[in-house]
Amino acid sequence: MTSAEPDAGLLAPGWAGSPAASATSDAAYLRALLDAEAALTRAQATLGLAPEEAATAVTAAARSGDFDARDIAVRARGGGNPVIPLVADLTKAVGGQYGPYVHRGATSQDIMDTATVLVAVRTLDLVRADLGRTEAALARLAAEHRDTPMPGRTLTQHAVPTTFGLKAAGWRSLVLDARDRITAVRNALPAQLGGAAGTLAAFTAYGATDPTALPAAYARELGLQAPGLPWHTLRTPIADLAGCLAFTAGALGKVATDVLTLARTEIAEVSEGSGGGSSAMPHKANPVRSTLIAAAARRAPQLAATLYGALTAEDERPAGAWHAEWEPLRDLLRLVGGAVRDAAELTEGLRVHAEVMREHLDLTHGLIVSERLSAELAPVLGRARAKSLLTELAKRTYAEGRSLGELLAEEPELKGLDLDSLADPARYTGAAATLTDRALERR
Amino acid sequence: MTSAEPDAGLLAPGWAGSPAASATSDAAYLRALLDAEAALTRAQATLGLAPEEAATAVTAAARSGDFDARDIAVRARGGGNPVIPLVADLTKAVGGQYGPYVHRGATSQDIMDTATVLVAVRTLDLVRADLGRTEAALARLAAEHRDTPMPGRTLTQHAVPTTFGLKAAGWRSLVLDARDRITAVRNALPAQLGGAAGTLAAFTAYGATDPTALPAAYARELGLQAPGLPWHTLRTPIADLAGCLAFTAGALGKVATDVLTLARTEIAEVSEGSGGGSSAMPHKANPVRSTLIAAAARRAPQLAATLYGALTAEDERPAGAWHAEWEPLRDLLRLVGGAVRDAAELTEGLRVHAEVMREHLDLTHGLIVSERLSAELAPVLGRARAKSLLTELAKRTYAEGRSLGELLAEEPELKGLDLDSLADPARYTGAAATLTDRALERR
Amino acid sequence: MTSAEPDAGLLAPGWAGSPAASATSDAAYLRALLDAEAALTRAQATLGLAPEEAATAVTAAARSGDFDARDIAVRARGGGNPVIPLVADLTKAVGGQYGPYVHRGATSQDIMDTATVLVAVRTLDLVRADLGRTEAALARLAAEHRDTPMPGRTLTQHAVPTTFGLKAAGWRSLVLDARDRITAVRNALPAQLGGAAGTLAAFTAYGATDPTALPAAYARELGLQAPGLPWHTLRTPIADLAGCLAFTAGALGKVATDVLTLARTEIAEVSEGSGGGSSAMPHKANPVRSTLIAAAARRAPQLAATLYGALTAEDERPAGAWHAEWEPLRDLLRLVGGAVRDAAELTEGLRVHAEVMREHLDLTHGLIVSERLSAELAPVLGRARAKSLLTELAKRTYAEGRSLGELLAEEPELKGLDLDSLADPARYTGAAATLTDRALERR
Amino acid sequence: MTSAEPDAGLLAPGWAGSPAASATSDAAYLRALLDAEAALTRAQATLGLAPEEAATAVTAAARSGDFDARDIAVRARGGGNPVIPLVADLTKAVGGQYGPYVHRGATSQDIMDTATVLVAVRTLDLVRADLGRTEAALARLAAEHRDTPMPGRTLTQHAVPTTFGLKAAGWRSLVLDARDRITAVRNALPAQLGGAAGTLAAFTAYGATDPTALPAAYARELGLQAPGLPWHTLRTPIADLAGCLAFTAGALGKVATDVLTLARTEIAEVSEGSGGGSSAMPHKANPVRSTLIAAAARRAPQLAATLYGALTAEDERPAGAWHAEWEPLRDLLRLVGGAVRDAAELTEGLRVHAEVMREHLDLTHGLIVSERLSAELAPVLGRARAKSLLTELAKRTYAEGRSLGELLAEEPELKGLDLDSLADPARYTGAAATLTDRALERR
Repeated sequence: MTSAEPDAGLLAPGWAGSPAASATSDAAYLRALLDAEAALTRAQATLGLAPEEAATAVTAAARSGDFDARDIAVRARGGGNPVIPLVADLTKAVGGQYGPYVHRGATSQDIMDTATVLVAVRTLDLVRADLGRTEAALARLAAEHRDTPMPGRTLTQHAVPTTFGLKAAGWRSLVLDARDRITAVRNALPAQLGGAAGTLAAFTAYGATDPTALPAAYARELGLQAPGLPWHTLRTPIADLAGCLAFTAGALGKVATDVLTLARTEIAEVSEGSGGGSSAMPHKANPVRSTLIAAAARRAPQLAATLYGALTAEDERPAGAWHAEWEPLRDLLRLVGGAVRDAAELTEGLRVHAEVMREHLDLTHGLIVSERLSAELAPVLGRARAKSLLTELAKRTYAEGRSLGELLAEEPELKGLDLDSLADPARYTGAAATLTDRALERR
Repeated sequence: MTSAEPDAGLLAPGWAGSPAASATSDAAYLRALLDAEAALTRAQATLGLAPEEAATAVTAAARSGDFDARDIAVRARGGGNPVIPLVADLTKAVGGQYGPYVHRGATSQDIMDTATVLVAVRTLDLVRADLGRTEAALARLAAEHRDTPMPGRTLTQHAVPTTFGLKAAGWRSLVLDARDRITAVRNALPAQLGGAAGTLAAFTAYGATDPTALPAAYARELGLQAPGLPWHTLRTPIADLAGCLAFTAGALGKVATDVLTLARTEIAEVSEGSGGGSSAMPHKANPVRSTLIAAAARRAPQLAATLYGALTAEDERPAGAWHAEWEPLRDLLRLVGGAVRDAAELTEGLRVHAEVMREHLDLTHGLIVSERLSAELAPVLGRARAKSLLTELAKRTYAEGRSLGELLAEEPELKGLDLDSLADPARYTGAAATLTDRALERR
Repeated sequence: MTSAEPDAGLLAPGWAGSPAASATSDAAYLRALLDAEAALTRAQATLGLAPEEAATAVTAAARSGDFDARDIAVRARGGGNPVIPLVADLTKAVGGQYGPYVHRGATSQDIMDTATVLVAVRTLDLVRADLGRTEAALARLAAEHRDTPMPGRTLTQHAVPTTFGLKAAGWRSLVLDARDRITAVRNALPAQLGGAAGTLAAFTAYGATDPTALPAAYARELGLQAPGLPWHTLRTPIADLAGCLAFTAGALGKVATDVLTLARTEIAEVSEGSGGGSSAMPHKANPVRSTLIAAAARRAPQLAATLYGALTAEDERPAGAWHAEWEPLRDLLRLVGGAVRDAAELTEGLRVHAEVMREHLDLTHGLIVSERLSAELAPVLGRARAKSLLTELAKRTYAEGRSLGELLAEEPELKGLDLDSLADPARYTGAAATLTDRALERR
Repeated sequence: MTSAEPDAGLLAPGWAGSPAASATSDAAYLRALLDAEAALTRAQATLGLAPEEAATAVTAAARSGDFDARDIAVRARGGGNPVIPLVADLTKAVGGQYGPYVHRGATSQDIMDTATVLVAVRTLDLVRADLGRTEAALARLAAEHRDTPMPGRTLTQHAVPTTFGLKAAGWRSLVLDARDRITAVRNALPAQLGGAAGTLAAFTAYGATDPTALPAAYARELGLQAPGLPWHTLRTPIADLAGCLAFTAGALGKVATDVLTLARTEIAEVSEGSGGGSSAMPHKANPVRSTLIAAAARRAPQLAATLYGALTAEDERPAGAWHAEWEPLRDLLRLVGGAVRDAAELTEGLRVHAEVMREHLDLTHGLIVSERLSAELAPVLGRARAKSLLTELAKRTYAEGRSLGELLAEEPELKGLDLDSLADPARYTGAAATLTDRALERR
């Protein structure tokens, strides 16, 4: 590998080697650009604006594969986008009589935007598949641990008990939210066709009586939605992609941050199926999947911000706003594609240590149920007495290293109460199981 | 005003004095927090978990208005959120027998999140109204200027003609996209109720047999959606708000950037209805509405990024991620609320100088239709000859200061062609009118 | 409080009530705007461009305090900035003969930028004072715990031992980096004076022979640096502020994230001096100071991004880029001002539980020193044998619940080695103490 | 090119094919990683911790080039970073007796951070060279156009005259600010060496008596600064890089946005030396260099935000914050490296149309000097009369299509004044020339 060679993901263990990496590679974009060009000529043929033979010739040349992404990339500098040199190469490849039908009536942005949408659709389908795996794994975990109690933690401190089932069901609900948002956006993605300034005027010049039929025909060739208007500077599709991808990264980031917390050496309530090792430290099993997801979640919001910022695009086609979209959108697709691959593996392999969770419920000497006792002792002792008693006993638990349950059992006022039950953290999980069941009904 | 006094929007001409500013003020949040507390007690009464009298007493005290936002703000520092001191004050205001029913079973975040949603709903309704005004104004502009030709500009240069109607229709389509996204998000916003760690356990301790009925009852009291799960760290509603607000800011930013361009001294194709003046320079009519919208559009994406980043929230309730949402979400609501007020005024008052647009079509000596001539002369002259002729004439237009139409008329090969029509920029607007008509069908 | 009233920081426990809040309030900006106007007239008087009496009259009126920030805020909407209505009010307050000397020759941005710089200087001085407190507290902690061993953690897992002294010294080095960056930026902040388009032309029209003397005189009046050039659209000072403030927030965020981790119920190696309580859960002592710092650290980078983005400001004064700076810069100043107040309290009050740290070193059954044993046993046993032995014993530690030291002591090959020392985590802290000492030499 | 192949910059005309692209490629990072490993062994040899032969063997193997970036990238997924598989490959390449000296005592992050710093230094040196070219070109433009008057524009409208010299001098001052910030950061960049948890403990285990000598020796081998402390989670160097790179992108973005404005078809006061063409529209000369710079400036702030966010990195080495830095920092280096290449070409080739600038000064019928006339007529006519006269004449200029100078000349009250001079925009450039001269003194 020389320094002139392109990148292979050396800085990107999160997405290197993933299907999403392939689906968003320069080669994949080149493929999509050629698909868009071929579809454009075919669509014109469908409407009688070009001979069938031209469509066949352009489609064949586009599929020939004889295009050099690196060379096109460098030549792209002249006009500021890769479509200009690609059209030159494709026209040459088609040659002769049908060469002039290549790219006829279109502007570079028609092809670039359409290719971007094609790449997005293809990548989002991979993302949806891995979200499906993740969701299924989480459903299993939630069902299996429906009644596994664990400490609920707020502001880093034990608060009241919860269950791992409810936690997994919550993670799953985020994954489903991500799936729903991605699916909605994906299914609405339009082809782009407007010509130089979005009026479709060139197609009229080339003989179309109703040029507005062309974008629809073009979209059909590509399996995309027909655009309502040319959207060269009406960037709703890109903003929608930004939103659903940033959301997905964040949803997975929530899962990852919880796993990273629960996998800490001192907590160890879960562990990744196959932690990353350390040569020097054999006891380490690093939560690598979560780490890489967390890294993606730190980056996605700012990439999305750049894309939302690109909505502010002047004129009929802008000088910079559009160009600023290309890499961030690809980065988002890749990052999310890699993160959801990691999320699927993470959730499918996650090991849950229910016994450790149970032990941790006792870390606060039973104070994790003090909320319950406040509520339930008040009718028995009166509010004021209940409060002062609990405050006093809370201090004693730590001082004497005894549990709240034990201390309560020594209080004569409380004879007759089922203190074993009242003070048992595992029996204070509220509606966790019901909430889990209901959440799992969502498909 | 002393330095201890709160802010009045001195740095925010974009939103100061707007309805959205009032709807998102500290006072409005305080109102919403109190509304949430009152609704919680009422919901418990509805389900038999609290006496009706408690509901009445809490509701009355919450409405009394006797709460000091500044004092609460300063005391909020202790526990890190304003609900803690507010509950103390409200409990005291209710007093006696019903005081204990204030906030019973809830956690601070239940109230804070619900109040945030209430504020968001109220502000989004203001935003929707102004989007409606903006959309209507743009529909009028698009219809009126359906056939007003103007230069289409790409990468800052004249490309081919377009119409102002199509431009206005495009702006309107973005405004409708914003409206649709905001409406969908607004109508899905849920109340928040989960108790300390999202299990609703305290409500069981206080006697609820099915505590999951309570969130639904609570949501009904407030006119909000019932939550599927407590969402203390499942922040879909906040991320959805971020997305639709960033989108709206960007959509309005597109309109503003176009107006700023078209209003430049040298272009002057549009002007704001009431430009801001300059004391020293009486000739200046600054496009102030667009300027303030543009400023909002520069800020919104990064505010949204912070909110998307807050999806990564650890545990059952997080230490920081949640707290980082409050001000950015309020800022987004205010900024967008202010920007859409400006957008309504801007579009309702926009003056369109069709005659200047027409003049500018001739700035390139007719080369703005060179695309058309390339297409239409090729069949007459052959592709190669058409191209070389146009290239030659293009040079001469600038050198001789004559129009392409004039020069073409001197070419004997082209006798018989309707060059007046072919070279007339106003007749090369393609499908602009049809696209405008169709876009206006969208409601 | 009515909904028309301004905000008091209800959503901002991080900065409400802080000195930085006062230093950045609307009232403080109003004061700074008036200071800038008064200095401008005085500077002109100094150079003989205005009568001394005008300087006296404007200064007196500016100090009178008879200005209504709320009213100015609302009127600012017309021209898009608050200086326009303020100048009207100040001119009226001065009245008569000297009124015309108010704001003479300046543009709104001259005053607004200068006021912003004044507010920044005043706030940064507060920030520097609290960074000083924080640094001193951390120096004490580092010295006191120079030899307090604790687990070093990487990717959430115990790696090898470190010391709390080194950790505190590292935190301090970040605080010093922040202090140095803030001091450098603060001391370079220039006044702004350029007139309508940055040429100082109006001052010539008013009689200045060398108008470039005026910015320097003006800066002297205010204790600021003289600008090299008018910087209306050369925004280095604002970008520099963004950078040093984002850095400071992140530096404090590092401290906060470590405290949040170490304060977790399961870890409990440190606790905040005065944790925030929870009414329902008496055992909870939330790390509130760290939480609020962490929230600030989540927001600052995106606020800085908006300011860096504002470097791209067109023309001599821009339509939007400048306006987009005002609130984010104030937000950054406030957030950092609040965060460093919290950091000072946090570090001054931090309780360090050295005995818990020591206990945790044994959580991995001695494997936390496996790196050392790999290194030191290799010369004794040969690399291969050392590795296989350690791998075997590592498994047995967990299986048998015994420590690596114990198991090693049973190996006949290792007789004669000082295994007590080799396997003692507290004796494997490397150069931690030396590094701490050296770091503390930095002032 | 198949979909498995790596990227060549197809989406990045801004940096594809640039020296900065090569300096930041995967191959360049691989080179830097190997340089770091070799330097580590050499440094140990220098201090007597490894045999000279080991240093020679590791250095030779590291230079052999026999490493496959793509394979390493994919294998990096296991442990989450590329150093782990690289060390395996390098150890194998060294083989035999000296293999164990590869990476001895180091942690992955030591090598990765050091390599990142090496790549940054190498790229920043390229950036500095192109900033130098840009600065020199701007100095020439500023000197040449010291007295070229043009309209000063504020909020998109003509305000008062300025000069192109002052504008170019302002651009240059930003470029110099960028150069100074980059140089300061570059020269302070430290090597990284701390071992597993930053205590240098492993080096003690391998026999170092003072392991703190090693980082300094290692830094010397690489021509970098010695670190004060290991900075695995004290990320000042990365934040400093973020700041100076975001600043540079914004500084160049200011130049680009001005050129884009001034190059508009209607304005045409400047044009790029070699505009990008359009096949369909021969009259178009797109400002492509400015467009690509503007695109970079839109992206850089958010990339910097991610890096500032990574300051919040928990523990001794973090799970995600560090991993989130790699690609954004590389992206920033590349983007800025590409943008400054474009800026050098842009400024070296910029064509300035002084005659068009002069014409535009008359676009407002002379009102562009109304500020001056207000100032200078007041002493003659009295303030009130001067103001009313100018207001009246301002209206007449537009209505009658005559210039303010003409109309003033008809006023009997003004006989005797040199109205030709007073009303000449070219003579109202204030201190522009002096400011330009002084700015050019800065080196």
